[in-house]
Amino acid sequence: MRDLVRATEIHLVRRPQGPPVPGDFATVARGIEVSPGEILVRNAFLSVDPYMRGRMNDGPSYVPPYQVGRVMDGGAIGRVIAAPPDSKLRPGQVVLHNLGWRDFATGPEAAFRALEPRPGLSLSTYLGALGMPGLTAYVGLLDVARLQSGEVVFVSGAAGAVGSVVGQLAKLHGAGRVIGSAGSDAKVEHLLRDLHFDAAFNYKRGPVLQLLAEAAGDTGIDVYFDNVGGDQLEAALSLLNVHGRVAMCGAVSRYNAAGPMPGPNNLGLAVGKRLRLEGFLVGDHGPRRGAFLSEVGEALSEGRLRADESVVDGIENMPGAFIGMLRGDNVGKMVVRVGA
Amino acid sequence: MRDLVRATEIHLVRRPQGPPVPGDFATVARGIEVSPGEILVRNAFLSVDPYMRGRMNDGPSYVPPYQVGRVMDGGAIGRVIAAPPDSKLRPGQVVLHNLGWRDFATGPEAAFRALEPRPGLSLSTYLGALGMPGLTAYVGLLDVARLQSGEVVFVSGAAGAVGSVVGQLAKLHGAGRVIGSAGSDAKVEHLLRDLHFDAAFNYKRGPVLQLLAEAAGDTGIDVYFDNVGGDQLEAALSLLNVHGRVAMCGAVSRYNAAGPMPGPNNLGLAVGKRLRLEGFLVGDHGPRRGAFLSEVGEALSEGRLRADESVVDGIENMPGAFIGMLRGDNVGKMVVRVGA
Repeated sequence: MRDLVRATEIHLVRRPQGPPVPGDFATVARGIEVSPGEILVRNAFLSVDPYMRGRMNDGPSYVPPYQVGRVMDGGAIGRVIAAPPDSKLRPGQVVLHNLGWRDFATGPEAAFRALEPRPGLSLSTYLGALGMPGLTAYVGLLDVARLQSGEVVFVSGAAGAVGSVVGQLAKLHGAGRVIGSAGSDAKVEHLLRDLHFDAAFNYKRGPVLQLLAEAAGDTGIDVYFDNVGGDQLEAALSLLNVHGRVAMCGAVSRYNAAGPMPGPNNLGLAVGKRLRLEGFLVGDHGPRRGAFLSEVGEALSEGRLRADESVVDGIENMPGAFIGMLRGDNVGKMVVRVGA
Repeated sequence: MRDLVRATEIHLVRRPQGPPVPGDFATVARGIEVSPGEILVRNAFLSVDPYMRGRMNDGPSYVPPYQVGRVMDGGAIGRVIAAPPDSKLRPGQVVLHNLGWRDFATGPEAAFRALEPRPGLSLSTYLGALGMPGLTAYVGLLDVARLQSGEVVFVSGAAGAVGSVVGQLAKLHGAGRVIGSAGSDAKVEHLLRDLHFDAAFNYKRGPVLQLLAEAAGDTGIDVYFDNVGGDQLEAALSLLNVHGRVAMCGAVSRYNAAGPMPGPNNLGLAVGKRLRLEGFLVGDHGPRRGAFLSEVGEALSEGRLRADESVVDGIENMPGAFIGMLRGDNVGKMVVRVGA
């Protein structure tokens, strides 16, 4: 006789055309079985991330597409409710896993990673500054772009989950100047006042090249951490110094595009300026997780780095949180709190 | 009393708009003085190179622009005619230097590099396969793209001075498959028959993506050595395998463009495929010259590598040789023979 758990899941019911709309999703309640030998977890926080938009399209990618009519997956953190007697996981244990978009998760022990949360930090931090977005910032800035002390860093999407860690981490690693772009004046103000960026601009307020040139002044830029692509990448290519680097993390400006969009018209500058553009996926950089958790965890605990978050309550609001995140409603990491 | 030498120079008389035309140049005869302490060299071969087109424009670049109404400069090889008694250079000595676009060159000893030509090789080889284009191929393929044994290499402009060395060197370094593109059926035939490329196509004969996909078959490509930019870069980005690299050497498809042209519309693929695109200039790689001369010189002497050349006779034909090279008239390195 198996237990039936009353669970709520978010299903993809239609592949979005352009920006996703609420009707692309359905909130589905159902009883789930816990198979013998499996773990049952009650999720506390669910992650919404830009890369999920790509998985809503059909076609080959570096992650398989979501299936229409099925629950999606994604980062989540929760606590074990039930575990088989022979499992190392005990009820109450905090676990990180990839069975998000639902309030209860079941799966084999290998699907869950036990962690001891740092005192004083919200569990949601492990989906943001201490989670995948934070590690993305860490390896992109230090391993891919190989930031050197004294260099000028520009990061787009600077008020987002990844960008806010990139900018702060660059300062902690001795960047000479940190410039951020964001999509509202309020975010720009936040970057300058709360995250101590040296310069920031609202990319909607003029030609990006002009705004970035004003922010960079005479120094140009040495590292561009690219979260958005499009005209911000083009502007960065124009202003990068000789031997500049671009860490290509994502291109949120294009995720909703129906077809191909022209690339930067100045990519040829890479020859004379000996630029390096390098794409990366955080999944390749697992071995850096220990160093990252230690360094960034400590900085967070000591208040030298701030974990920006936008928290939405209720699993039924998850599609709205996702849609809003793609639109830029969030400051820092957007998470959904469930079962509060 | 100083000697007057009757010399012929090619001057830039007008900055080209789009493709250069003969009227942009003038052949000027004048008597040149050899100042005390200077070397006099009679040039044997002059180099025409794609990068010179950029120097004919005004504006900042990695090399200063040519001046209107003045003689240009560029790679050349010749023999010393006269040298001061205290110079290490003796009459008859072969020297490589950058005072091209003229038949007689004068300058301080430091402007000339003495070399001992390998027996059996034309002096012009030191402007091509054993010169700057060859070193460009060598460092771009081995140091920038970091070719690994067994990998698939695609090189555009494959019948040109750089491309023809890239393809042959890739084979010598164990590439699994070498694909080249060129602008005529005759060049394609030459690549397959004489340079032993595994596959080659005429990029004018169809959508490049389709032609490249047919040439690459199921294997995709691992390294793209980019001499042309434009739609060949776009096609390569589509077909590059995970962790593929692009050595960005030049973009001859754009050198004559009047304004910016759209970049590759699929640059965002670099994220998921973790591609690295890296621009480079051969001038940064001087320390590799010794290894290059030894390895490629030996391969040339032993017949394992072929130095393709197109030789034009007469300094008065140099503007035409340059214009023709940009149009793709040459096979291999285009040089002008003077004072034969």
